Amino acid sequence: MIHSDKTHISQDQELRQVEEKKFLLSEPFKLENGELSSLEIAYESYGSLNQERTNCILLCHALTGDHHAAGYHEGDEKPGWWNHLIGPGKPIDTNIFFVVCSNCLGACGGSTGPASKSFDDTSKIYGMGFPDFTIKDMIRAQKALLDFLEVNNIEAVIGGSMGGMQALQWIVEFPEFVQKALVIAATSRHSAQTIAFNEVGRRSIQGDPLWNKGDYSQGSGPDIGLAVARMMAHITYLSDEGMEDKFGRDQPIDSTHNFEFKVESYLDHQGKKFVDRFDANTYIKLTKALDRFDLVGDQGLDNSLSHVKSKVLVIAFTSDWLYTPEQNKEIVNAMLRIGKDASYLELDHKHGHDSFLINSPDFLRTVSAFLIGKTEEDKKEKRNSGSTHSRYDVKKEADFKIIDDWVEPSSKVLDLGCGKGALLEYLRDTKDVFGLGVDYDLNKATSCVARGVTVCQEDIRKVLSNLKDNSFDWVIFSRMVEELEEPGKVILEALRVGKRVAISFVNYSYWKNRYRFLRSGVRIRNEVYPDPWETSKLRNYFSVRDFELFCKDMRTEKIEFSIGRKVFHRGDWVKTCKFLPNLRAGLAIYELIKK
Amino acid sequence: MIHSDKTHISQDQELRQVEEKKFLLSEPFKLENGELSSLEIAYESYGSLNQERTNCILLCHALTGDHHAAGYHEGDEKPGWWNHLIGPGKPIDTNIFFVVCSNCLGACGGSTGPASKSFDDTSKIYGMGFPDFTIKDMIRAQKALLDFLEVNNIEAVIGGSMGGMQALQWIVEFPEFVQKALVIAATSRHSAQTIAFNEVGRRSIQGDPLWNKGDYSQGSGPDIGLAVARMMAHITYLSDEGMEDKFGRDQPIDSTHNFEFKVESYLDHQGKKFVDRFDANTYIKLTKALDRFDLVGDQGLDNSLSHVKSKVLVIAFTSDWLYTPEQNKEIVNAMLRIGKDASYLELDHKHGHDSFLINSPDFLRTVSAFLIGKTEEDKKEKRNSGSTHSRYDVKKEADFKIIDDWVEPSSKVLDLGCGKGALLEYLRDTKDVFGLGVDYDLNKATSCVARGVTVCQEDIRKVLSNLKDNSFDWVIFSRMVEELEEPGKVILEALRVGKRVAISFVNYSYWKNRYRFLRSGVRIRNEVYPDPWETSKLRNYFSVRDFELFCKDMRTEKIEFSIGRKVFHRGDWVKTCKFLPNLRAGLAIYELIKK
Repeated sequence: MIHSDKTHISQDQELRQVEEKKFLLSEPFKLENGELSSLEIAYESYGSLNQERTNCILLCHALTGDHHAAGYHEGDEKPGWWNHLIGPGKPIDTNIFFVVCSNCLGACGGSTGPASKSFDDTSKIYGMGFPDFTIKDMIRAQKALLDFLEVNNIEAVIGGSMGGMQALQWIVEFPEFVQKALVIAATSRHSAQTIAFNEVGRRSIQGDPLWNKGDYSQGSGPDIGLAVARMMAHITYLSDEGMEDKFGRDQPIDSTHNFEFKVESYLDHQGKKFVDRFDANTYIKLTKALDRFDLVGDQGLDNSLSHVKSKVLVIAFTSDWLYTPEQNKEIVNAMLRIGKDASYLELDHKHGHDSFLINSPDFLRTVSAFLIGKTEEDKKEKRNSGSTHSRYDVKKEADFKIIDDWVEPSSKVLDLGCGKGALLEYLRDTKDVFGLGVDYDLNKATSCVARGVTVCQEDIRKVLSNLKDNSFDWVIFSRMVEELEEPGKVILEALRVGKRVAISFVNYSYWKNRYRFLRSGVRIRNEVYPDPWETSKLRNYFSVRDFELFCKDMRTEKIEFSIGRKVFHRGDWVKTCKFLPNLRAGLAIYELIKK
Repeated sequence: MIHSDKTHISQDQELRQVEEKKFLLSEPFKLENGELSSLEIAYESYGSLNQERTNCILLCHALTGDHHAAGYHEGDEKPGWWNHLIGPGKPIDTNIFFVVCSNCLGACGGSTGPASKSFDDTSKIYGMGFPDFTIKDMIRAQKALLDFLEVNNIEAVIGGSMGGMQALQWIVEFPEFVQKALVIAATSRHSAQTIAFNEVGRRSIQGDPLWNKGDYSQGSGPDIGLAVARMMAHITYLSDEGMEDKFGRDQPIDSTHNFEFKVESYLDHQGKKFVDRFDANTYIKLTKALDRFDLVGDQGLDNSLSHVKSKVLVIAFTSDWLYTPEQNKEIVNAMLRIGKDASYLELDHKHGHDSFLINSPDFLRTVSAFLIGKTEEDKKEKRNSGSTHSRYDVKKEADFKIIDDWVEPSSKVLDLGCGKGALLEYLRDTKDVFGLGVDYDLNKATSCVARGVTVCQEDIRKVLSNLKDNSFDWVIFSRMVEELEEPGKVILEALRVGKRVAISFVNYSYWKNRYRFLRSGVRIRNEVYPDPWETSKLRNYFSVRDFELFCKDMRTEKIEFSIGRKVFHRGDWVKTCKFLPNLRAGLAIYELIKK
């Protein structure tokens, strides 16, 4: 049986006539803290399972989300919450993938949870008597569904916010089953501030007399308390700037309503809408599951993640103050410390935590880069450069050939300032090298992701300080040391992390530079120093001799090292030279060997 | 009558036996929206009023604060909320100042407000029937108190948070009456996010059935709703980092209580403590007064502040996300745009908004610098340098003398990268120059404040972009252009803001530099370029000729300018030279004149 979605694909490439399905497990389902006599899971799927049953993508929804992720239910005007991402030809391409999204265990959108009738004889609503479920319980329920669907292996698990935590739990719990994990705007555990907001929300519900210790009937629950909880939580999903743009006091407000400020009317609307679709006990139990989720625990994050085998991409949003970029980075940092394949991208969106729900070209591009790889444009770029040039992708990468000669097969290479990842892609493809690239530019880092090159979009000092001693065979600085403040410190850090360091740089004291400076007394300008003083970035130019003096002086430092091979290119960057390199070299490439 | 505080000063220099006083205005008091038949104000004072009745400092408290700012009430173990700042020898020095702090109108600490009995025959509690009072009403009530105390003029009004908004309203409303204003962690109006949090707090109170539309008797009010509002608000007073340090999940929790996380127990405690001392209707009315405070309004902030005459210092805290550094800066930016005397300092504290209540050496130093001026240490520094050196404060300020020659008396001077403000202090003292300094270093900027030099602790690009065309006679770059990325743009901006620009710089192509570079091929190192490459900051060195080429090329730009006077110092930075400056000058000083 090959599962195929009966969803119609309309001419405008949107999923039409999407339907909810149900999976009933009529046997006891064990939870971390209890057991359910039966379990029902509501889900949707889009696209078809392939013959090998390996093209499944599992989507995990957020706290108050549900399984209607994409397409239109019959008669609906609004599509599912991630419709811009899912569909034929979209980043989560239903022409390629079989996409499954289930309402998570414990939620109130159709799966068994506190608001469901229990499966025993009484058929009473569970209410607060529902076991305290966890994120782990959620993903085990998803696994049961995938077993029922006879999925052998999932191509990717994807989730934002609570969904991101589920994705993390998946790769910890079922390391062999998941090829890739896309974790978006998530955290390995809640901060004190986040727990505080959740607790205030719970207290608001529990303080409402209609909550009645969780014993209320549908339609007469603690609506006021739940609305206040939702209003407050909603503030944490947005950013200060985003709110100001939409609800700032300069925005006109609808005077027919009794509100003084636009944001008051917006929050009121959010609160009212929420109590119509969500259950208070479920909200209490779900937020507790989030607060208790803790991959750090007593053992530490590195330990929790030690069995992970999936390729991971974590995406954070700059303005997200609920699950901050720092918290997202912690996940990647832990994985990189223990040698896992984890990439990090940070998108500068202003919508706060909810940015992961917003349709934006760069977000779409990152998801597509991770799931599908190079775009047509990327490939075109390669073809163009390939036709005019050597076996290397990038023009003028004169130092790449030398570094390629030096790096042994199957080594681990850290490329600081990796650009679009051409070198690491080449080393991987020809020498089975595991590379980690670092580049602070989102576009370049996204290109790395598209090439399948592991990348951290982060300051190189921070990446270095996180990595363990000797965790790489090579650390490469390809013509970027000039951009570093106090470069000596950074090079010593690289020597701590790597066994060898390769540094290529433009030799500032090349004879033409010296002669011109003597004669004219103006800043050097040529192909490699193209800008006049007034439009220059700040730089730290240096010469072959500066570098050798540094190496000599640094021998007294804690980290002992020596200069290994060195190659000097002449002014044309093609022919090499051996004698008088400080005068004759245009480009220098050094190998530093740690003792 | 000279007002004198009867407070005893104990040997440990703490204010003991502080007492609350009451001022009753037995006549109608007009509010912006209504009238009170009488008005009672509770207050405290510390120190004595001088003969001229001009040494009064008025303190304004925050939303849930009160008038017990300093010292100990008889038998109390804990002193007032700003005791670390107020007292003999402290930054708000009661040996010098007569300090007054009143419970603000509309609060519930002893002054007339929603929780008071009305003065009419019924003697009923006002409750929600109390008029909707404003920040302006608060400061008018304070003015009535000061009139009663026969204060002629206040040396300074000081306030943090809501107190800072009162201080702003003071200088707008009574410009002649206030010498200085110290505005701490405040805003000119609430952002949408802040209104949103306040609204959720109000909704929580109003959703509690015991609120009963504001009609409750003492002891049986909406405690649950008020506690939830307080718990939530408390999160906004702290920072994520500060909470993590104190209540992170690694912190042990007291297991005798029924809390899972430490932060839950902390919030519970805060909520409970608050309902014992605060009134719910007062909380609703006070937060509304804050939400309605708006110095921007339809007219814009510049207009609202146009009559200000006080010297203003705004202090913000980096981790404050309630009234962010950006919001605090907006106040200063508006004042600087319209030529007012406003300084800005930003302290890198991690306690969030509540940082203004924390005892920290740098905060104490900034307050003391603003109120009292130079410390003994500052003066000592001056004496030491004065004895060995010229009339200038700072060693080696070779360019200061030239710039001093150029600047006409009574001009307006913007000094970008002003350091400790020595030049501007000197120009003010000798030539009555109004100076604005800009320096990104807190210590240097605080020294400026102590010298009475107006200063903005901010990036110079941002300061420039805020200022109007031709608003300064001179803009000065004293040996700091080398530190700028794309310096040409910044110089053109300076030419927009100033009529003339003075630029001093070290001439990179000084003949010894050229010769040494030719000969040795290493980076230049000498007194002015002290660091070897490996420990260097990023720089943008340039020469006399680079600069002149830039001036020539830029003549085609929108802003037309010409080179006026120029002075070249030889390598010793003392003797001048005229011929072949690109070769012979060690230091160059240029005047640029806008056409």
